Parts: sequence; structure tokens; C-alpha cells
Amino acid sequence: MNPIDGKAEETKKMLIVGGTGGTGSWFARFFKGQGFLVSVWGPSGKVEVAERLGVSFASDLPAEVAASDVVLLSVPIQETAKVIEEIAPRMKPGSLLMDVTSLKRGPMEAMLRWAPQGVEVLGTHPMFGPTIPTLRGQTVILVPATGRCDFWLSPMEEIFREGGARVEILEAEEHDRIMAVVQALTHFAYISIGSTLRSLDFDVARSRRFMSPVYEIMIDFVGRILAQSPELYASIQENPEARRVREAYIHECERLSKLADEGDTSGFMEAMNSAADHFSGTEDALARSDRLISLWIDRREDGRR
Amino acid sequence: MNPIDGKAEETKKMLIVGGTGGTGSWFARFFKGQGFLVSVWGPSGKVEVAERLGVSFASDLPAEVAASDVVLLSVPIQETAKVIEEIAPRMKPGSLLMDVTSLKRGPMEAMLRWAPQGVEVLGTHPMFGPTIPTLRGQTVILVPATGRCDFWLSPMEEIFREGGARVEILEAEEHDRIMAVVQALTHFAYISIGSTLRSLDFDVARSRRFMSPVYEIMIDFVGRILAQSPELYASIQENPEARRVREAYIHECERLSKLADEGDTSGFMEAMNSAADHFSGTEDALARSDRLISLWIDRREDGRR
Repeated sequence: MNPIDGKAEETKKMLIVGGTGGTGSWFARFFKGQGFLVSVWGPSGKVEVAERLGVSFASDLPAEVAASDVVLLSVPIQETAKVIEEIAPRMKPGSLLMDVTSLKRGPMEAMLRWAPQGVEVLGTHPMFGPTIPTLRGQTVILVPATGRCDFWLSPMEEIFREGGARVEILEAEEHDRIMAVVQALTHFAYISIGSTLRSLDFDVARSRRFMSPVYEIMIDFVGRILAQSPELYASIQENPEARRVREAYIHECERLSKLADEGDTSGFMEAMNSAADHFSGTEDALARSDRLISLWIDRREDGRR
Repeated sequence: MNPIDGKAEETKKMLIVGGTGGTGSWFARFFKGQGFLVSVWGPSGKVEVAERLGVSFASDLPAEVAASDVVLLSVPIQETAKVIEEIAPRMKPGSLLMDVTSLKRGPMEAMLRWAPQGVEVLGTHPMFGPTIPTLRGQTVILVPATGRCDFWLSPMEEIFREGGARVEILEAEEHDRIMAVVQALTHFAYISIGSTLRSLDFDVARSRRFMSPVYEIMIDFVGRILAQSPELYASIQENPEARRVREAYIHECERLSKLADEGDTSGFMEAMNSAADHFSGTEDALARSDRLISLWIDRREDGRR
């Protein structure tokens, strides 16, 4: 059964703008697998990518926009506003406009401004990169436009859930506020560690001989982030909410460092205790990370045999 | 065969000062399993702990010190110097003095100062906590005193290796310099994140609904550290080398944050690229963390069924 309208004979047309990139290609494969008739468009005519994906290339972009039931924008965040302005006004009534950027307030405002009344708007934030094999265990955050996402919200939720994802619904403001911690602070701390290793001229490869699993896992996450698109990570830091979070982080780093510099052991312990009280669930976190470390050691030792 | 001297009939006596604590008890069990005749001592006479461990309690501490082949000190780092001054002078020629603190320069200086000539000295840093089930895949760093660890180094190495550990030999200065990054920086970044979540009054439990695996794993490591002894974590920050590392980290945080504040995308990307160049092996780190994330998702999704 077609999850969109219950009628198997009615195939929906989806255009993915930026569908020749990594993330766009992932979505092209995914939605094709879900029964959509997918076409993709990318700059400088990447027809061969479309062929490899087994979908059509939207040579006549304006005509394709006007004919599509869903337009999904998968372009770098810096270009999103410009692309929305160009694409959205050409969409047909009853169709759906989606983006897949990591921020939601700006793109939602632009989509609501440029999409004609009658076009639905669904902000989408897939919490994963294009290297994942399936949606299983991944999170997709949806930001439906108030009063302008009545038809499409349920079928899209169902499609992602059927693929194995957990779907969460948020408003744009709260999304950006939460992501300033969940994404921006996480990445910022790791990137800053990577940058510190460079500034200290620290021998990372040699240090692996002396590592604890906590360090080993951390250092691999630092490497993981440094291996990926600097453009994406830079854009996540440009979340307006992230500035406040980075300031708070640097402030806490300075406060704790001062306590340690002064040998104020009890002050440092007090800071840790109050962080633990706020965190809540530290024992669960300890148990979960113990299991993760065991899995990690099993993998590594198996690999050595 | 007894790994210490090849003669099964000669059982070596080991005294563990602080052997009634978590780490000390772990070593009591371990060395008992390796054929040592273990006794433990702890403040305020914890005879019942010794009974539970199936070892004797050293009621007459000075006599026990004088009679032991190995004395292992497992006391909080703040007390290590004082305990060494009290214990070491009473040791017999040919015996071995070991500590198991996370720093090496200070304890080595104290052990070399207070242990009589003829007593060997082996700084020891187990890179694990007492919750680990076995030594498999764990690292033990040994710091043999130059010219004063000729007899005991090989048998101790062999004992740890037979238990499954990887053994690394370092000098005290290099040990402390490396640990200022491997332990102190790792913990500092995580503790500062925990403290930031408190200062922002951020709802950690709710945020789990919106997490990516990178965030989920990080947040569990934050919780893991906050769940454990603040005293231990405070003492690791008191590594004199750690101050310089924290300063470098805060400096990099400020530099990167400024680039993001100013919307200097290319500056931020350049900082990431040069950190990646220095790191080397980012692709391996990406692949290893991909596998870890898959294991993590498998575990979590299995738990949900």
C-alpha cells in the first residue's frame, strides 16, 4: 500500500533539489524505495549521478518543480534561502515543500514566505549523515508549519517510521535551541580538542599506546568530525542560539580551570557534584558507557587476533 | 609456574596499603589470583573487607611492611607523599615499592627519596578503574626507577601481560605530559560540558529524544565521569602539566568561537582542516566510530524490543 494516500495506483512525484549530493542521493534512494517517482537536480548537470541512482534528472527544473507533489531541498545551508526564493513560488497547490537543513528557524521563515498559499511546508532535520546504511535507530525531527501541513504530516511521519526511524515533532525555535547543545556544543568541544592537539603539537598516533577507552573513543569522535565536511560543521556553529551556548561553555571551562589552577580541590569537587545533580541519571550513563566500552574492547581485541 | 622467580614453592608476600578501597581491593583480588600471599591495610581497621577478599588484614602495619616482598600503595593522590614517607623507610632490601596513582613525577620522587637503597621502585599507572571485570584490553603503564628496578620489572610486566593487559614503559616526565592530554583534557572537556548543561539549565533527559548517536555517546561519557569520585577527577587536574593543556584548550575554544561569532566560515573551515592535517588518521577514526555507533544502535534497539 502506498502510505501517502492508500491508493497504490497513484504514484507521487518527488523532486530533490541537490539530489546529486551525498545527503540528497541518500534521500533519492530512500524515497524511491518508498514508491515515489523521484527526479533529482544538481548544479552543472550531474546526469550521471541520476543514472547511477536509477532516477530521472530534472533538466527542465522550473517545469519539474511545477509538476512535483513533493519538492525536497538538500542544499548547503548558506544557499538554502536563495534556492527557496527561486523554487518555492513555482510549486503547485497541494504539494509539499521540505528542507533537510540542520537549522529550522531561518529555512521555515523563507519557505513560508516564498511558497504560495496552498503549498504545505514541512521543516525536516535528519539527525544523521549519508553514511548510515538504514534509518534503523536514527532520529528524524519534523517541524510542520502551523496550519500549513495538514495533509502531508501523517504520511511523512509514517514513511520515516516504517523505515525504522524515531520521529519527533518540534517547533522551529525549540529545535534550534536544543540543537545548539545537542549538535553545536558537542561538535564545538570535539573540534576544539582537535585544534588543541595541533596547537600543542601532540603526537596523537603515539598517544594511542597509552590510552584509556574513554580517551580512545573521544579521540575517534574528534577524528570522525575532522574527517567530515568542514562546511557543514561551520554552518552548525552559525545557529544563532549556538553563540550563547559556546559562551556558557567557555565560561565554565574558565571557572573550572581556575579552581584547578588554585588547587581548590573542594571547589572543583563541588562543581562536579552540582553538575551531577543537574544531570540526573549519571548511574545509568555509567552503566551504558561501561557496556559500550566492553563492546569496544571486544571489537578491538578481536581485530588483533 | 610462579612468574616471579620460576620457583613454585617460594610464595611472595604482598602488602596493599589502601587495599580495602575500590582500587586496592581490585589489586588484592588480582595479585591473590596470581599466587601472591596478599595482606591489606586500610584506615579505621576494615578487617571485614579483608575477610570478604579472603586475605589477611595487616593489624601490625610496621611489622607487615618489614616482612613484605612487595608493598603496593593504593591511596588518594593527596595522601601518597605522606604515606610513602611513613611506609617506605621500613621496607626490607630486595623488596619492591609500587604506587598506583595517576601521576608519576611526584610519587616517583617521593618513593626514591624515602625507600632505602636496595629497595626497588616501580611507578605504576593502571589506565582503568575498579569496575572492570578483567585486564583484557586494558593498559598498564610502568615507570621503572632508573637503576633501581632490575629484578622486579620483568616479572611485573609478565604478570600484567598474562592477565590480558597491554604494558607500556614510560619515564615519569613523559608520562605526566601525555596524561595531561589523555586523561586531564578528556575529563576536563566532559566535566565542563556537564557544568554547562547545569548553567544553561538544559533538560538532559528530554534532549535524549532528539539526540544523534554522537551526542548520545558523549552525554553518557559526561554522565559517566560525573558519576565517579570527584576527588579522583580533581586530582587528575592537579597534574602540573594539565594547567598548560587546559590553557591551550580554552585558547582554542575562544579562537574557534570568535570565528563562528563573526560568521567567518572559511576561517572556521581552515581551522578544522589544519586540525585534521595534524591529527592524521581521521578516516580510520571515522570508520572505527561508525562501527561503534552501529554496535551502540544495535544494543539500544535490542533493548527496546
